Amino acid sequence: MAKTIAINAGSSSLKFQLIEMPEEKVIAKGQIERIGLSDSIFSLKFNGEKFENILDIKNHEQGIAYMLEQFTEHGVIEDIQEITGVGHRVVAGGEWYNHSVVVDDEVMTKLEKLIDYAPLHQPANIAGIKTFQKLLPNAISVAVFDTAFHQTMPQVNYLYGLPYEYYTKYGARKYGAHGTSHRYISSRAAEMLGKPLEELKMITLHLGAGASITAIKDGKSYDTSMGFTPLAGVMMATRTGDVDPSLVSYIQEREGLTNDQMLDVLNKKSGLLGVSTISSDMRDLQAVEDTNPHAKLAIDMWEDRVLRYIGQYIVEMGGVDVLVFAGGVGENSPEQRKNIIDRLHFMGIRMDDDLNADLHGKEANLSTDDSTAQVLVVPTDEEIMIARDVEALK
Amino acid sequence: MAKTIAINAGSSSLKFQLIEMPEEKVIAKGQIERIGLSDSIFSLKFNGEKFENILDIKNHEQGIAYMLEQFTEHGVIEDIQEITGVGHRVVAGGEWYNHSVVVDDEVMTKLEKLIDYAPLHQPANIAGIKTFQKLLPNAISVAVFDTAFHQTMPQVNYLYGLPYEYYTKYGARKYGAHGTSHRYISSRAAEMLGKPLEELKMITLHLGAGASITAIKDGKSYDTSMGFTPLAGVMMATRTGDVDPSLVSYIQEREGLTNDQMLDVLNKKSGLLGVSTISSDMRDLQAVEDTNPHAKLAIDMWEDRVLRYIGQYIVEMGGVDVLVFAGGVGENSPEQRKNIIDRLHFMGIRMDDDLNADLHGKEANLSTDDSTAQVLVVPTDEEIMIARDVEALK
Repeated sequence: MAKTIAINAGSSSLKFQLIEMPEEKVIAKGQIERIGLSDSIFSLKFNGEKFENILDIKNHEQGIAYMLEQFTEHGVIEDIQEITGVGHRVVAGGEWYNHSVVVDDEVMTKLEKLIDYAPLHQPANIAGIKTFQKLLPNAISVAVFDTAFHQTMPQVNYLYGLPYEYYTKYGARKYGAHGTSHRYISSRAAEMLGKPLEELKMITLHLGAGASITAIKDGKSYDTSMGFTPLAGVMMATRTGDVDPSLVSYIQEREGLTNDQMLDVLNKKSGLLGVSTISSDMRDLQAVEDTNPHAKLAIDMWEDRVLRYIGQYIVEMGGVDVLVFAGGVGENSPEQRKNIIDRLHFMGIRMDDDLNADLHGKEANLSTDDSTAQVLVVPTDEEIMIARDVEALK
Repeated sequence: MAKTIAINAGSSSLKFQLIEMPEEKVIAKGQIERIGLSDSIFSLKFNGEKFENILDIKNHEQGIAYMLEQFTEHGVIEDIQEITGVGHRVVAGGEWYNHSVVVDDEVMTKLEKLIDYAPLHQPANIAGIKTFQKLLPNAISVAVFDTAFHQTMPQVNYLYGLPYEYYTKYGARKYGAHGTSHRYISSRAAEMLGKPLEELKMITLHLGAGASITAIKDGKSYDTSMGFTPLAGVMMATRTGDVDPSLVSYIQEREGLTNDQMLDVLNKKSGLLGVSTISSDMRDLQAVEDTNPHAKLAIDMWEDRVLRYIGQYIVEMGGVDVLVFAGGVGENSPEQRKNIIDRLHFMGIRMDDDLNADLHGKEANLSTDDSTAQVLVVPTDEEIMIARDVEALK
């Protein structure tokens, strides 16, 4: 039976999911952490069991080879040649790709040209693709771009108020991210409502450690909160979200930081972590919000920034029919969902608070009958979307 | 009779208005341009006549002395000692000032400490104050801060998602600007509607070459679009408005620019000018928008960014009762007002298009009877506000 593997490679990690298609049955999943460091961790979930091994994995190639060995060793599959398709999450697709593609030499050349847009992630994505092409030469490799779904944004929304020549010279524009997730949750939400996506004005809220919000109109991404990079938009676990660029250079000069060091602060030491000073995890902050004013402030800011984008997109689209929560916080935190929807009551948007309070990580329509917009929770599933794209391109 | 002079000093310019108080009668106004350059221009409007002289003015002190001489020479006043109050627009008040103050030694020390926040403007403001204190030692000097009105913003709105220590170490937060204008137009709008400002949720749109939008709730600034500096927020004549900070360093490295050079691009070569590539003036772009796609794009983006903030603030405040247009474009461009209000029809916000089409630079209530929010035009008048503050502190 045809099996597809969905791969999400980071600079020092690799997540995988082995899926039987077209049944969309997840056979096994797991990850490799600390690639390139000592004591790397390989973990595999299969048949209700979890296997974990600590060993030194030098690079992505070694990690992938080890993973394939483990598949046969644990009886996940008999022969690695059963894997006939490999779908790779690729961070940057630039303006070249508005959908997934089979990776051939021409595509590979372009992926390499796009490294500048995602210097940490893109090389890992490329390494993952090359390794699979070597180890499984008969399987097709498909690149599934994080940016592709947002290529439908109109120019008025994706351009910045910068000199136009920076767009032509450097591709300086909004690309957005989490595209595969927004595509999945929007199409699933339409399915749950039994309505064509094209007829719904939808705001999809992917609220995890990374967070982005997308306005979907006529079935297409119309605007999204992340920008040229995933730094912009709402406040996240460790990313600032929107911030006055003059303030960035003001701080940088006073702290004596290089551009790269400053970007590191903005991406890894800011957001919930930076404001609360204690944790990047919403659950940790919720646990102490009654006694720790920094934790409370961080949560309030996080919610406020989400509301700002909901407001923007309602006005940009001229209304909203559906709001969809997804991502770690969106799927699992009734408190944040309630705080957000409560502040939309003035527009007639309402949900059933009891239903909401009990919902963790499952699909549901939370809206009350009289709500002016549907409020859904749809746990995201980028891997299924990747596997579907592979299947469609076989 | 008591006369107050309102002063707005820039790095190479100084605007003035001489006002009889408490009658609020403007006696004379004018400006000095190209201070510190050859061929400086002094202009004065008085009694329906305009006088203009070209001469070399080395610095603010020389310019102010010349202006006072011209007042007596043209018979604007008999004796410069009739000027009993001087109100200075001061760009940065930091967290120290939430209202205007009489400048004494302590205030002067603080103004100097705030230079870092506005390195181009603050020294000119200070030079202006010192000169008047020397030339008119009996008149009181009042500092009217551009940031003061926004000091009521709650922390959740004024903080960025940055490490908290940057706030305590560097005052890294949103200060906003155009505060005197937003204060004037909001109080005038409430007066026109015959309702207490405290009872109105209001969005004031100061849309000039510099542009900012403020959400006013309970009679106070609740949020505003400019940030740590006036760079942030909506797209302006030559300023970018919001932009992903990672993109800024990306461009900076590729163009080989220093931080200051990059800030110069963001502040002076971007916005309408940068996108259109032809002009920073909305009127120039309107003239060619049908044939020049860059001009059309710049206008569309400008309108879209205004709408984004209207949407944010409607949701942040939980509704809106009044929208007020002011500033060069807000007061004089029926086209932009129409394009913005048209896109709010979905919320029931409507105005009389005929009334709008004929309105240039005058006060009016444009809303239709059935509009869910009032739409006003209020030409801003920062000078009157400055003179009132001087009068109140005498």
